[in-house]
Amino acid sequence: MFNKFMLEVGREGSVIRELNDFGRQRAKLLGKDSVFDFSIGDPSVPAPSKVQKTLVALAEYPDSVSIHGYTSAQGLGEAREAISRGIQKRFDFSMPPELIYLTCGASAALAISINALCESGDEFILCAPYFTEYPVYVKAAGGVPISVPFAQNFDIDLDSLEAAITPRTKAVIVNSPNNPSGKIYSEALLKKLSSLLMKKGEQLGLQIYIISDEPYRELAYDGATVPYIPAYYENTIVCYSYSKTLSLPGERIGYVAVSPKAHLCEELFYAIQGAGRALGYVCAPAIFQRIVAKCEDETPDLAAYAENRELMYDGLISAGFDCVPPEGAFYLFIKAPDGDSKGLSLRARELGLLIVPGDDFAAAGYCRVAYCVDKDRILRSLPLFKQLRESY
Amino acid sequence: MFNKFMLEVGREGSVIRELNDFGRQRAKLLGKDSVFDFSIGDPSVPAPSKVQKTLVALAEYPDSVSIHGYTSAQGLGEAREAISRGIQKRFDFSMPPELIYLTCGASAALAISINALCESGDEFILCAPYFTEYPVYVKAAGGVPISVPFAQNFDIDLDSLEAAITPRTKAVIVNSPNNPSGKIYSEALLKKLSSLLMKKGEQLGLQIYIISDEPYRELAYDGATVPYIPAYYENTIVCYSYSKTLSLPGERIGYVAVSPKAHLCEELFYAIQGAGRALGYVCAPAIFQRIVAKCEDETPDLAAYAENRELMYDGLISAGFDCVPPEGAFYLFIKAPDGDSKGLSLRARELGLLIVPGDDFAAAGYCRVAYCVDKDRILRSLPLFKQLRESY
Repeated sequence: MFNKFMLEVGREGSVIRELNDFGRQRAKLLGKDSVFDFSIGDPSVPAPSKVQKTLVALAEYPDSVSIHGYTSAQGLGEAREAISRGIQKRFDFSMPPELIYLTCGASAALAISINALCESGDEFILCAPYFTEYPVYVKAAGGVPISVPFAQNFDIDLDSLEAAITPRTKAVIVNSPNNPSGKIYSEALLKKLSSLLMKKGEQLGLQIYIISDEPYRELAYDGATVPYIPAYYENTIVCYSYSKTLSLPGERIGYVAVSPKAHLCEELFYAIQGAGRALGYVCAPAIFQRIVAKCEDETPDLAAYAENRELMYDGLISAGFDCVPPEGAFYLFIKAPDGDSKGLSLRARELGLLIVPGDDFAAAGYCRVAYCVDKDRILRSLPLFKQLRESY
Repeated sequence: MFNKFMLEVGREGSVIRELNDFGRQRAKLLGKDSVFDFSIGDPSVPAPSKVQKTLVALAEYPDSVSIHGYTSAQGLGEAREAISRGIQKRFDFSMPPELIYLTCGASAALAISINALCESGDEFILCAPYFTEYPVYVKAAGGVPISVPFAQNFDIDLDSLEAAITPRTKAVIVNSPNNPSGKIYSEALLKKLSSLLMKKGEQLGLQIYIISDEPYRELAYDGATVPYIPAYYENTIVCYSYSKTLSLPGERIGYVAVSPKAHLCEELFYAIQGAGRALGYVCAPAIFQRIVAKCEDETPDLAAYAENRELMYDGLISAGFDCVPPEGAFYLFIKAPDGDSKGLSLRARELGLLIVPGDDFAAAGYCRVAYCVDKDRILRSLPLFKQLRESY
């Protein structure tokens, strides 16, 4: 009757949505203070003030027609130039504006990139733990998601990855800083990954691409740096979002950038444009393209996230939880004391703590705690986490 | 290497884009006044003042986190309720907010609806003349576009449509007021279409859907009314956009609404949600969802378009062109004197007139003139159209 896959994907209650429904009902019954929602990566710090000022100026601009009109499908030149300048400045890497394509956020960027690359049956390697939507995008494009388990401390397990490469391998999706683990892949690891993909590509006569999903790129703590993957591997497609950096998650603005060093980069860029068009993306929201043009170099209030991270990490550790200290993003990934992550999430929600079991992130046995919330909420939640741990 | 279809779709220079490039070069060379761009449906009237005021208020709202945060994938309840109320008021039709799904414009709504319905090989009937992107969306979803020629005055040719229905028919895409012809399908025609689809559906044991693409619904002239298709046919999916009504084409805001009378409407709605998710749409831009919630009942400056339409139509007729008077939207569809629409477009551009050949709209022999431009431009273009006609 309808498309079976779409029906299934639409029906399957997202665990996060279910948790949110539970939270809403609990808040109705017991009051707002009885719910501590750590389930969603919705930034808790306001948009940088320059973003807010620019938005007001754009909204007030008298010539509404020129502000809100269609842009080219690729996006405004001024936005693409600002992005290119930002990449040059931050990473000393030359990403030409001609190979940048503005999108409705990183999810659109991922779906578009995957559709641009994928012929039916192509394999996409996903490095656990990974964002729940990757396999959905890959399957929708007619591809096959291949899950590779993680190594110690949520690093990429290169041996498993090597074993997963076949003549049908099209790309590896890499996400650093990582959602859900908070891991930043080191330069050493990325160099090894790059050598491995080049070696295997040569052996198999393949071009293997890295799709680098980087929405958390600017969220790194304790002076950690996030290596820029195109500097280490030529066949790289960057998927970026301003959702977290500029605290605009609902406004859907991000981009795809194809490395100028990638094999047949111009042809690949045509395929990206084709996929954007064929999936119904006409252009990224125009007013937020203009925001990017003016505010690309703004950064979020990292200090607030850093403080949250410390409070949450220390609190969870002293409550007795096992947890790798996160280096970036705004997630902590804690171990279920008995290995049952769904059980931990269920126990937690009885106390009003909403945390997401790692099963859908291909990391059963762990739960994700999003600490992008008010500091006060974190402080008040810690005794409950203690109680939760003591229930084991 | 890459996805062949996406590469092809990305590469194929859109005729409109090509015309725009030509226009830009000519403007550089000969000055802005030497180019009369009638190639694109970008509204020329500003957004209604309530939209502009609401946007400023939202931009100034101090709690940026709550304004710009993620909404549910389906969209804000307040926006869906406003849409439902608007439909009730305008068409006396009950469209429940639960069956409305906010999208990044009508193109996203179309791509999502087609992907929700389509299993590989399903056929989608397109009634010429039609929007160039329909076949792209259908093919990308694995479907087969079936083009049906138009009857007199750009009406739907019901005999041809009947002959095109097969056991693989999944849906008919209907667009009224029509891009590119400006035709509004009459109530009588829609009743016949409805009977035909019900009869054929019964004969073949099929549920045939209408996808009603309605971005121009509010743009009707001379008191013409636009019949609301869900009132005539149960299996209807409405794809709507605020691009034209609220003059926000670059901001990407619209919706899909599934008629509550449609067969398995709830299941279909799940498939819609699944397709939205699988194509990378997380939510429609949040700030414009809020605009819809507050400004759903606003209308554009119809008088300006009506005046343009009259000036343009009268001018073209007195220049000697053959043209059916358009009833809605903001397009005129003129006949190439020698039947060669590409030739007419080429001759026109030599005079600085950018008009789009109808070939990509499945209507060779005609050219589309978008009259959503400054009145002054229209007035100054008329002598050139006269000159163009005289060149034959």
